[in-house]
Amino acid sequence: MREPRQDPGGTFFEGVSLVNLMILTPIAAVLALGFVVFTIFKVLKFPEGSAEVRSIAAKIRQGANAFIRRQYTVVAWFFAVMLVILCVMSAVGFLTWFVPFAFVTGGFFSALSGFVGMKLATAANSRTATACKDSLNKGLRVSFSAGSVMGFTVVGLGLLDLAIWYYLLHYVFKLGIAEVTAAMLTFGMGASSMALFARVGGGIFTKAADVGADLVGKVEAGIPEDDPRNPAVIADNVGDNVGDVAGMGADLYESYVGAIVASCALGVAAFPQFNDTPGSPAVTIPMAMAGIGVIVTIIASFLIRTKENATQKALLSALRRGTNFSAIAIAVAAFPLVWFMLGREHIGIYGAVISGLLAGVGIAFFTEYYTSDNYKPTRAVADATKTGTATLMIEGLSLGMMSTAVPILLVCASILVSYFASGGASNPGLGLYGIGISAVGMLSTLGLTLANDSYGPVADNAGGIAEMAKMDPEVRQRTDALDSLGNTTAAVGKGFAIGAGALTALALIAAYIDRIEVLVADIAANTNPDFEFFLDLRIDNPTVLVGLFIGSMLPFLFTAMTMKSVGRAAQAIVVEVRRQFREITGLMEGKAEADYARCVDLCTRSALREMILPTLLAIAAPIVTGLILGPNGVIGLLMGCTASGFMMAIMTANSGGAWDNAKKYIEAGNHGGKGSDAHKAAVVGDTVGDPLKDTCGPSIDILLKLSSMVSIVFAALVLTFHIF
Amino acid sequence: MREPRQDPGGTFFEGVSLVNLMILTPIAAVLALGFVVFTIFKVLKFPEGSAEVRSIAAKIRQGANAFIRRQYTVVAWFFAVMLVILCVMSAVGFLTWFVPFAFVTGGFFSALSGFVGMKLATAANSRTATACKDSLNKGLRVSFSAGSVMGFTVVGLGLLDLAIWYYLLHYVFKLGIAEVTAAMLTFGMGASSMALFARVGGGIFTKAADVGADLVGKVEAGIPEDDPRNPAVIADNVGDNVGDVAGMGADLYESYVGAIVASCALGVAAFPQFNDTPGSPAVTIPMAMAGIGVIVTIIASFLIRTKENATQKALLSALRRGTNFSAIAIAVAAFPLVWFMLGREHIGIYGAVISGLLAGVGIAFFTEYYTSDNYKPTRAVADATKTGTATLMIEGLSLGMMSTAVPILLVCASILVSYFASGGASNPGLGLYGIGISAVGMLSTLGLTLANDSYGPVADNAGGIAEMAKMDPEVRQRTDALDSLGNTTAAVGKGFAIGAGALTALALIAAYIDRIEVLVADIAANTNPDFEFFLDLRIDNPTVLVGLFIGSMLPFLFTAMTMKSVGRAAQAIVVEVRRQFREITGLMEGKAEADYARCVDLCTRSALREMILPTLLAIAAPIVTGLILGPNGVIGLLMGCTASGFMMAIMTANSGGAWDNAKKYIEAGNHGGKGSDAHKAAVVGDTVGDPLKDTCGPSIDILLKLSSMVSIVFAALVLTFHIF
Repeated sequence: MREPRQDPGGTFFEGVSLVNLMILTPIAAVLALGFVVFTIFKVLKFPEGSAEVRSIAAKIRQGANAFIRRQYTVVAWFFAVMLVILCVMSAVGFLTWFVPFAFVTGGFFSALSGFVGMKLATAANSRTATACKDSLNKGLRVSFSAGSVMGFTVVGLGLLDLAIWYYLLHYVFKLGIAEVTAAMLTFGMGASSMALFARVGGGIFTKAADVGADLVGKVEAGIPEDDPRNPAVIADNVGDNVGDVAGMGADLYESYVGAIVASCALGVAAFPQFNDTPGSPAVTIPMAMAGIGVIVTIIASFLIRTKENATQKALLSALRRGTNFSAIAIAVAAFPLVWFMLGREHIGIYGAVISGLLAGVGIAFFTEYYTSDNYKPTRAVADATKTGTATLMIEGLSLGMMSTAVPILLVCASILVSYFASGGASNPGLGLYGIGISAVGMLSTLGLTLANDSYGPVADNAGGIAEMAKMDPEVRQRTDALDSLGNTTAAVGKGFAIGAGALTALALIAAYIDRIEVLVADIAANTNPDFEFFLDLRIDNPTVLVGLFIGSMLPFLFTAMTMKSVGRAAQAIVVEVRRQFREITGLMEGKAEADYARCVDLCTRSALREMILPTLLAIAAPIVTGLILGPNGVIGLLMGCTASGFMMAIMTANSGGAWDNAKKYIEAGNHGGKGSDAHKAAVVGDTVGDPLKDTCGPSIDILLKLSSMVSIVFAALVLTFHIF
Repeated sequence: MREPRQDPGGTFFEGVSLVNLMILTPIAAVLALGFVVFTIFKVLKFPEGSAEVRSIAAKIRQGANAFIRRQYTVVAWFFAVMLVILCVMSAVGFLTWFVPFAFVTGGFFSALSGFVGMKLATAANSRTATACKDSLNKGLRVSFSAGSVMGFTVVGLGLLDLAIWYYLLHYVFKLGIAEVTAAMLTFGMGASSMALFARVGGGIFTKAADVGADLVGKVEAGIPEDDPRNPAVIADNVGDNVGDVAGMGADLYESYVGAIVASCALGVAAFPQFNDTPGSPAVTIPMAMAGIGVIVTIIASFLIRTKENATQKALLSALRRGTNFSAIAIAVAAFPLVWFMLGREHIGIYGAVISGLLAGVGIAFFTEYYTSDNYKPTRAVADATKTGTATLMIEGLSLGMMSTAVPILLVCASILVSYFASGGASNPGLGLYGIGISAVGMLSTLGLTLANDSYGPVADNAGGIAEMAKMDPEVRQRTDALDSLGNTTAAVGKGFAIGAGALTALALIAAYIDRIEVLVADIAANTNPDFEFFLDLRIDNPTVLVGLFIGSMLPFLFTAMTMKSVGRAAQAIVVEVRRQFREITGLMEGKAEADYARCVDLCTRSALREMILPTLLAIAAPIVTGLILGPNGVIGLLMGCTASGFMMAIMTANSGGAWDNAKKYIEAGNHGGKGSDAHKAAVVGDTVGDPLKDTCGPSIDILLKLSSMVSIVFAALVLTFHIF
């Protein structure tokens, strides 16, 4: 049994008058969405290009729209079934009636984030290709603007959803702050479910197309990437949009919202004395900090300007300038926020914000170190091609495994600093709140990080269009430069997301523990006076231990399932592409057109079929484990899943990133360049790494949080019925 | 703070008179060693073969002896340094004076187990090759006898060491049973340290030689395996002996002894009322059960007979018959043992024995399912070669990850059954004792399992000799049949070892927790009356949590280090073999002899250099973590390391096994057979899998236990000095 929360003490005279800072949340949401509309118009003003470019872009757009429509139909069925289940649970009293609807809105906004981003990405790809005819800088402007739309749609819709529910429940339905945060946690579950479908489905689509196209096109037929003769080439470009853009949007929406609601819930538990004041400073801090983050990053995105003839290095440093400005501005703004909200005795919580920001920066740096070909590790992977594919595989796998060490140590340092600086030694609740706040700190610059992240796929698509439309080779060189820059910033963004994901998962686990304690008291007071349940979270309690083991296994099983899905889907593409090469006469000579639509359709069907099982696993595992082992086992499971999931996510991201960049390094003319044996080996490495880094890794990150949120929503059920 | 151990209750009238069953331990030790001597003479009676065979065998023997001599010299330095450190710690009162010497004997006997096994293996390889000239069955008899020597040396020396220390400390030095088991735990640490050196050093040697030889020989030069023109071929054969035989012997010695001493220590904690009787029934049970296991398996090994012209299937079923007989005999014998020792109220502990045996059988079956080419998973890996190396890699990796699910669920079931059947619900101490007993149950048939495990390398070597001595192709076919049979039984044995390793690691963690509790009481009573320390093992305590994260990372880091070591060492071999092909004129035409010794020397130097760092990591990590995070953090670390280490061990073993057998499946004529593109891809898969399954995986298994034992030995230091 956990120690009862102590009164954190301290006066609160400064706080009450500032509770209105909560208003920053809807303001920031409106600003972000306004900035999105402004940017959309900016992008659409650029010319779309020649008729050929437009025709190719239209094919990509149609494929992407068709996939998204069919995917959202499948997901809608899932949400309908879950809505029924949740309504039944509400009817029998396991949940309040807000939960089912909060769940649905979370899913809806998450889907909308992905949809808007994808819509714009499929409009910006042709414009980026056309802009690259003029200059690199112009190309960056278009693609980065498209990325910004994605980034600020995510944060804007996230804050809007949070604000609406907060004001609605608190001021219209007059719920207490504890019930408000509990209901808000369940829209996190909706967002996570949607995100997992989007990531897994989109990830399988994009990597099946990519791997399938490469295996037959590059390796067997010896034609270049994005060659229009390859029947899978449109599917490959569709994949960039539905996986890397729409999938990532839904994913980061979930991370962002999850971190904020988890912190709010922990704030309620840590500062029970504020729970009767209208709004609580402990809840206001994460919400307001997110709002400040949005405002700061909008300003920062105006700072990212370069001269017309800027080099790639200058571009990168412009991006860095924007990120650094945001981080520093948030560090400055958070200090008065914490001080005036919670008083001087809780200023230690500011330490949590700083430790989160610093850990994020540190993880980003080490991700770059391990995956950029400017540093030793990726160079060593490239060198290993000299002794063949086998040593390349060994080197890449071990790089990924080794690269888990520093990020986990940074996260551990951040946990210890956040916990103890926030006063966890005397009051565990405060310490856990600190961990949540550090995750919010890490994610507060998300708008910008995500913009950095998502212009890469747009540039990648632009390159594809340039190749297919046989534009000037200089255009392709420029889009490649943008794409390569995007690869580095994307890897960095991924590291950030995984770090924040781990901290968020921990905050959610803490929220789950609180939830169980509240429920136990609630059931004993209202329903069944004889009801008794004791949390026994000792790690040597066998139910905790067994849960821990099962949880540690889940990311392995999950990775295996998603990898196999990509493998299966890719093999189907290989067979189809080979068939078209064989059966369509004149295709290889460029006299006949390939049947692109069939490959798109094949990818769509594979992705939709294969995305179901992993998602159900993520949802069912904590419920089934809970019904057998009880809440103690669930907590063990969540911890084990977070610990081993973090390692698997980092390992897959960095092995994949290093293989990809080792290939690019060789293509740049090292170790014999394109066409050499070293290059052939590197293509194999890249092909293995692709599903790891773009399907499995990012999905694991969602898995961690989804399983926590599912546990929270089904807490009452598990508490009532369990075997051990 | 853990609940105080309750009095387990129950009468003990039956027990006292039976304590003498402890005598079974030295009796079984003597029987086992007698059986070893008998079997050695049996093997040596077989003819060694022609002059050419003798000359090749002599080269292998010399290489192996040279490596072992140099390896043991390095290890001796390590033991000397540790001896000094432990003596200093004894002098300042952190340890009793028996500990440093127990540590050294553990290392000595572990090394001796490996040494004896290797000596006989290098004598039996030529004899097996020669015997295969007559018949398959005769070849099996020689190689299986050599394997039996290894198996029964391990269990014989293990029980001898245990018996000597037990009788010495208990009856000569008149120590209480609690001090006896505490000292015995530290010879486990000696054994584990030695085992890790042997496994990592031997594993790097063997796989560097194997991978290096394959990469240049098979892939580049296109000459067959074990072709005498390949300069690395002798090193490859030396590797089988120093890695697969000597390394495995030291490894399983450690597992065996570790499980028994951990159970004894938990028995002391669970049954405090017995601690004043001379010998305790709770300590007698694991020791006597191990003794019974040895006697049963000696009988069983006489049952393994086949007709002169037996098929491979008949051979396999003969082996299975022996294993099943032993398991059933132990299940039968354990019942009266538990009943008469502990009385009817503790008969539930018998459930622990059965659950351990069943889980072992289940893990063995699923390992076979995932790694044998008779079943779907490995067939699917072989099929994936049709679309190239990349899909083969994806399929194999996902197979390994997926195969973690069932074994961990079996271990979890075994934990729950052992814990609750033994009475853990009312008295956690009894439950933990049950977990220890289930590990002993799983390992009680070790003599035979290990014999099954270690005839494979002998047969492999025999095949190498047959090839090099240009014996009749039929001989090679027979040794290949033995080798392939050995592959399956070895994979099964590996699964067994990993399962028992996880249970043993848990028992050791429980022993560590007891140790801390005893030390706290001891320091407060004798040294410093103001001393206070509370174990707070809640999984949401940040020191436990951070420990858990760091522990989960260790197996990843460790795997990365050992993999990279193999990769580096293999690259050095590749360069050397290429040099010899280039510089020694007439080598490829068979007119000049390769410089085998140089490759052996290169492997030796690489292995010795590379084995240091991983071993130091395993020893330093729990000590450094302890000095920072304290005992709570150490326990988190050990748990995290056990959970993620189990997954990594299973994954590496099964991915590697499946790739190996997929290659063999293709070589048997499927998908185009030898020389086809599918075969080339399969060779790459096997090369990647080799270090995974033979270096990394088995070492992780030792890592889990070594880190627990190190924690136990350094408990007083960590308890006295730590930051958090």
